[in-house]
Amino acid sequence: MVGGGEGAFIGAAHRAAAALDGRIQLVCGNFSRAPDNNRRSGRALGLSPARIYPDWRTLIESEAALPESERMQALTITTPNQLHVPIAEAALRAGFHVFSEKPAGVSLAEVKGLKSALDASDRKYALAHTYLGYPLVQQARQMVIDGALGRIRKIYVSYRQGWLSTGLENSGNKQAGWRTDPALAGASGCMADIGTHAFSLAEFVSGQPITHLCAELRSHVEERRLDDDGAALFRTAGGASGVLIASQVCAGEENDLTLHIYGEKGGLEWRQMAPDTLVHRIPGGEVRLLRAGSDKNFLHPRALQGLRLPAGHPEGYLEAMANLYRDFAASILDGVPANYPGIETGIRGMAFIEAVVASRGNWVALADTVDSPTEVLS
Amino acid sequence: MVGGGEGAFIGAAHRAAAALDGRIQLVCGNFSRAPDNNRRSGRALGLSPARIYPDWRTLIESEAALPESERMQALTITTPNQLHVPIAEAALRAGFHVFSEKPAGVSLAEVKGLKSALDASDRKYALAHTYLGYPLVQQARQMVIDGALGRIRKIYVSYRQGWLSTGLENSGNKQAGWRTDPALAGASGCMADIGTHAFSLAEFVSGQPITHLCAELRSHVEERRLDDDGAALFRTAGGASGVLIASQVCAGEENDLTLHIYGEKGGLEWRQMAPDTLVHRIPGGEVRLLRAGSDKNFLHPRALQGLRLPAGHPEGYLEAMANLYRDFAASILDGVPANYPGIETGIRGMAFIEAVVASRGNWVALADTVDSPTEVLS
Amino acid sequence: MVGGGEGAFIGAAHRAAAALDGRIQLVCGNFSRAPDNNRRSGRALGLSPARIYPDWRTLIESEAALPESERMQALTITTPNQLHVPIAEAALRAGFHVFSEKPAGVSLAEVKGLKSALDASDRKYALAHTYLGYPLVQQARQMVIDGALGRIRKIYVSYRQGWLSTGLENSGNKQAGWRTDPALAGASGCMADIGTHAFSLAEFVSGQPITHLCAELRSHVEERRLDDDGAALFRTAGGASGVLIASQVCAGEENDLTLHIYGEKGGLEWRQMAPDTLVHRIPGGEVRLLRAGSDKNFLHPRALQGLRLPAGHPEGYLEAMANLYRDFAASILDGVPANYPGIETGIRGMAFIEAVVASRGNWVALADTVDSPTEVLS
Amino acid sequence: MVGGGEGAFIGAAHRAAAALDGRIQLVCGNFSRAPDNNRRSGRALGLSPARIYPDWRTLIESEAALPESERMQALTITTPNQLHVPIAEAALRAGFHVFSEKPAGVSLAEVKGLKSALDASDRKYALAHTYLGYPLVQQARQMVIDGALGRIRKIYVSYRQGWLSTGLENSGNKQAGWRTDPALAGASGCMADIGTHAFSLAEFVSGQPITHLCAELRSHVEERRLDDDGAALFRTAGGASGVLIASQVCAGEENDLTLHIYGEKGGLEWRQMAPDTLVHRIPGGEVRLLRAGSDKNFLHPRALQGLRLPAGHPEGYLEAMANLYRDFAASILDGVPANYPGIETGIRGMAFIEAVVASRGNWVALADTVDSPTEVLS
Repeated sequence: MVGGGEGAFIGAAHRAAAALDGRIQLVCGNFSRAPDNNRRSGRALGLSPARIYPDWRTLIESEAALPESERMQALTITTPNQLHVPIAEAALRAGFHVFSEKPAGVSLAEVKGLKSALDASDRKYALAHTYLGYPLVQQARQMVIDGALGRIRKIYVSYRQGWLSTGLENSGNKQAGWRTDPALAGASGCMADIGTHAFSLAEFVSGQPITHLCAELRSHVEERRLDDDGAALFRTAGGASGVLIASQVCAGEENDLTLHIYGEKGGLEWRQMAPDTLVHRIPGGEVRLLRAGSDKNFLHPRALQGLRLPAGHPEGYLEAMANLYRDFAASILDGVPANYPGIETGIRGMAFIEAVVASRGNWVALADTVDSPTEVLS
Repeated sequence: MVGGGEGAFIGAAHRAAAALDGRIQLVCGNFSRAPDNNRRSGRALGLSPARIYPDWRTLIESEAALPESERMQALTITTPNQLHVPIAEAALRAGFHVFSEKPAGVSLAEVKGLKSALDASDRKYALAHTYLGYPLVQQARQMVIDGALGRIRKIYVSYRQGWLSTGLENSGNKQAGWRTDPALAGASGCMADIGTHAFSLAEFVSGQPITHLCAELRSHVEERRLDDDGAALFRTAGGASGVLIASQVCAGEENDLTLHIYGEKGGLEWRQMAPDTLVHRIPGGEVRLLRAGSDKNFLHPRALQGLRLPAGHPEGYLEAMANLYRDFAASILDGVPANYPGIETGIRGMAFIEAVVASRGNWVALADTVDSPTEVLS
Repeated sequence: MVGGGEGAFIGAAHRAAAALDGRIQLVCGNFSRAPDNNRRSGRALGLSPARIYPDWRTLIESEAALPESERMQALTITTPNQLHVPIAEAALRAGFHVFSEKPAGVSLAEVKGLKSALDASDRKYALAHTYLGYPLVQQARQMVIDGALGRIRKIYVSYRQGWLSTGLENSGNKQAGWRTDPALAGASGCMADIGTHAFSLAEFVSGQPITHLCAELRSHVEERRLDDDGAALFRTAGGASGVLIASQVCAGEENDLTLHIYGEKGGLEWRQMAPDTLVHRIPGGEVRLLRAGSDKNFLHPRALQGLRLPAGHPEGYLEAMANLYRDFAASILDGVPANYPGIETGIRGMAFIEAVVASRGNWVALADTVDSPTEVLS
Repeated sequence: MVGGGEGAFIGAAHRAAAALDGRIQLVCGNFSRAPDNNRRSGRALGLSPARIYPDWRTLIESEAALPESERMQALTITTPNQLHVPIAEAALRAGFHVFSEKPAGVSLAEVKGLKSALDASDRKYALAHTYLGYPLVQQARQMVIDGALGRIRKIYVSYRQGWLSTGLENSGNKQAGWRTDPALAGASGCMADIGTHAFSLAEFVSGQPITHLCAELRSHVEERRLDDDGAALFRTAGGASGVLIASQVCAGEENDLTLHIYGEKGGLEWRQMAPDTLVHRIPGGEVRLLRAGSDKNFLHPRALQGLRLPAGHPEGYLEAMANLYRDFAASILDGVPANYPGIETGIRGMAFIEAVVASRGNWVALADTVDSPTEVLS
């Protein structure tokens, strides 16, 4: 693992998620550029001092030099965005599989380069679009594929947080610090950080690439250098239209990612903060709640596969991320086909970021990238 | 009353709302242009046959000819939009107060004309922006005025219905029929019908006029002649920005009007379908639910005034509309200042409709109308 | 109307509910034993001074002396419990129909006497079990009748309020005053006031008389003379069992009346504070939300009949009570069969109160009263 | 680990929960009495064949014979109830710490014996009362301790499941099989399985031992040999009273464990199926939602300690159980005081089971066991 030292929330989440199913073990790491933090973090995790590396290059080189039976097999990257591609490419070159935080990189061109590297190797690459790992998100996608909603007309996705309502980056908060620094985060703050989650959720469930958008980004806190808020009208390849909202200045909101999708025959609603219920509305007045843990009469196998517990025993964010890690491990260890977000999703996300930044209130087309919005097609 | 014959939902709602508090009595009407429907409707309401009039002109003339102690005092208009202004003007000329369905008319120019007529008379005019009559909408507005949220940054308002997902207008549904007919509804379908509710709710609670918007309207059902769906990015005079969504093709949705508003210090959420709770989010993680019926420690007098029952006894749509009628009656009978949406709100709504229709995906400015989004300022 | 002067919540609710559908008009009243309150209340309601009577006996005598076309047709009783039967009997004798607050009286014997008087007359009698007027309560009952749940096994009903958590009766609160005074309320406080609502809801929806119960009542506030809290285990004639909870010292609760009922094939849940949703759980994991306003594919005609508005326009407590008044008026004016709670429901309630007071922690049988728990059978 | 082979839900939950924080590793097991299941289960978990033991005695003996640095340190017991104490005692004698499923055993006497064994050893013993590991359950307890509710008056706890609505035990379902078999489960089915959870939650949050109860148990499915349903009225040592409901025949219910607790100054509500919200009701009408992940201004350190993620990232059942494992590991590895449910909670649970089975509709006293309902006092 690179990144995820003391004070970094997402690194700890990756470790817990990877550990949950008992097939993945943390063996080495470079947790921080600060030597003290790095050392303390590694020790607290029970690593041998020899495998707590001072920087990511040393980590990759040293592990590659170990006998095959001892060295790590895959590298998790949880650094600021601008290092995602350089580390991923180095890891691939050294023969390691990669599990990267999103966005995949800081520019579409850079991530296309990474795709070329991947295409030329036989290594696996997973992108931490954790919300796509929720079983009922899979269920929603399958219901759309199976035509339960008919032709899709409307997609509304919003992701509201409040934690950047004040200038946290000026008071030493590391997570706020790098996310608002163009040198570390890239051309976008909020849209890269959470807008990409909303975007990939919309494309994943609808099965329709977003082709055009008209967006306005804002920065509400004085001297903040990147967007902390924005919204976009959009159109899809399949003739649907919708609205995407992403904001980190919705004071008081926690982590409210919500999707509504409507077709000719009904609608679905999913809320990340109550992830074990998928609302299915059917014209006429009936509302069905599809529940995580329901039996096979109600849920698609793809959804059931991501559930560990009977209905009524809540599973959450770590379990959703663990689903990605489990499928990633299965593709490496058991040779099953990749069934998790990968480089195509990463490319789509970069196309989104570049379009949303370029729009400035005008309609723009997303770069033409791939036919399908994501490769998780089971 | 003009309009509201058999099969018309909104007319019956007006009658129940007006009756609720015991100060208003239905004395005459022209309920339908169809003589049979008109007669049957009037009789079912217990009116004397002499005061069931064949058309609205006859109604106004005949009532005006009655002795003052016998004639109606105010006229409710629940016809299709294109008649709102002609009937209102005739009623005013004949000396009657007017309670009109929204939108106020079919063009901004026409409604400005109505305003002139009103300015020149001493009659009262109320507009059925029912949702502004909900006590917790009043509470939200007062909290914004009192600074509970700090400076407002974001306003999201969405109004989702599903009842026009199919071509109801082609199968004899009267309500769908006139709402999708430009000759009766005006230049907009969905935006005039429900978009104006979302718009006035946003302006009323935020206290900020919307100055610019960028909208896309759609018509999803074949051969439908007016928009049944749309969304807009917008900016306000106070520097806030937001998103307005209105759609009648969200299949399976009932009547989901929802407002989120955020300032520097917190956020409010109100949902019309659960109108007795106002969610107040405060950064740090506390969420307060302000409940209808709460005692005076928690609610503003303006909100308490609109409540008839102790907490936990649900009050709904009719009670909200009854609040407008009660205040309308009080302004006529007791001479208290108008405390309900009126012609200014109507003008704002027309400015909205014209802008949203004109936008076609571009940023446009709303016509400059009034300083304050609504006159209900208590 | 007798009772319902200034400061009395329930009288105003009766007036609004009766007015809602436009067929019932308030023509006279004795609103308070206090002459000032009585006069002010009557005037505020627009009554002619001649028909604001100083006491209920005068009201009945005077109205009976008026010409038939002028006098009231039915009398609403909203006094403390000990007057319910005396006034009802006097009204019946004078030829008036009666709409009484619950409980029907202060003892089973007294209410049986009232039933004899009713049986000997042709007048109508309705009991204000308002919660039975909610459309989705009717829906729940019909689903049980139709076998949607199979044989009923479990019934849980709880009614939690918090308003008597302190000694309100010692600080001049009238409503708390009479409800905690055995001379005015009868042998029970909480159980007579709200326990009877829970009891009648359980019997009405399940269609099964409760035959035995084991209850503990408590009085939590110092010097309070009647129960303010209690719970009972119970068994029904149909072999089901359950739990009834009623408390007025659940500090912070508003008016939380909730029913869960389960049979072999599924369960239903209804909450008065969100009355427009009926939750239908079906084994396997599907949950259906039946919504007020849904179309006829989903709701029973008996439920649809109680709805005035399309789905998503909330109707509440006043509309539920208005349903009772509407059906009461229809039975008087149109001669349709009674379709509202009446004297049988009143007798069942008295049997419940007497059993729950007598139990003191032991199993007791309810008095054998009627075969059916209530006469509202549509 | 003993138990938890293929088809056993709870064993897999223990493994995931133990793994989550990276301090506990599965090293050996006896997963089933069926050799095939045992072997397959062990291999699927990546254990070396030598440490997949044929029975629990062999497991304990063989592990004890390994060098200290290689052998397991603690044993998780997830067998049917009748083996809990025998295995725990053997494990303690061999020097292993024990993490046992609940109930602690099949009789109070047996569990008191286990307590003596524990008192005589220096080994740790944890009981899988998973629901006590939820952060907001800890918060609720701390708020009661801190007097936020004032003196406690009412405790309502209900645990509703539906999965035993039919005779699953007759169709080869293992989990239903042993839970309804007195030889394996002990004297109670539903009350031992889930009633104990409801009971321990009530005592843990209120801080008050339940002293008396009056219960009725039922068995609804033909030929079922143990209770599948029941309810009890109860009183506590501190003068509160309440109701406990536990049923496994609430058809359609998933795993609905809900607690309401009220004191003189307010009430708390917690629902396991939405575990990240604690509702705090304050008389007058304000409702506060305390949210998991809230910052330290709102949550007690004891609650914060059990949270891994920022607000709005749902944590669920596995995380709650992982909290018990983490504290268990900390008490073994770091020597910190025990901070999880242990033998005292087990003894209380047994006293509850024996009382509830003995009651048969009469008031009975719980055996006098310990002063405090549980030892988790932090």
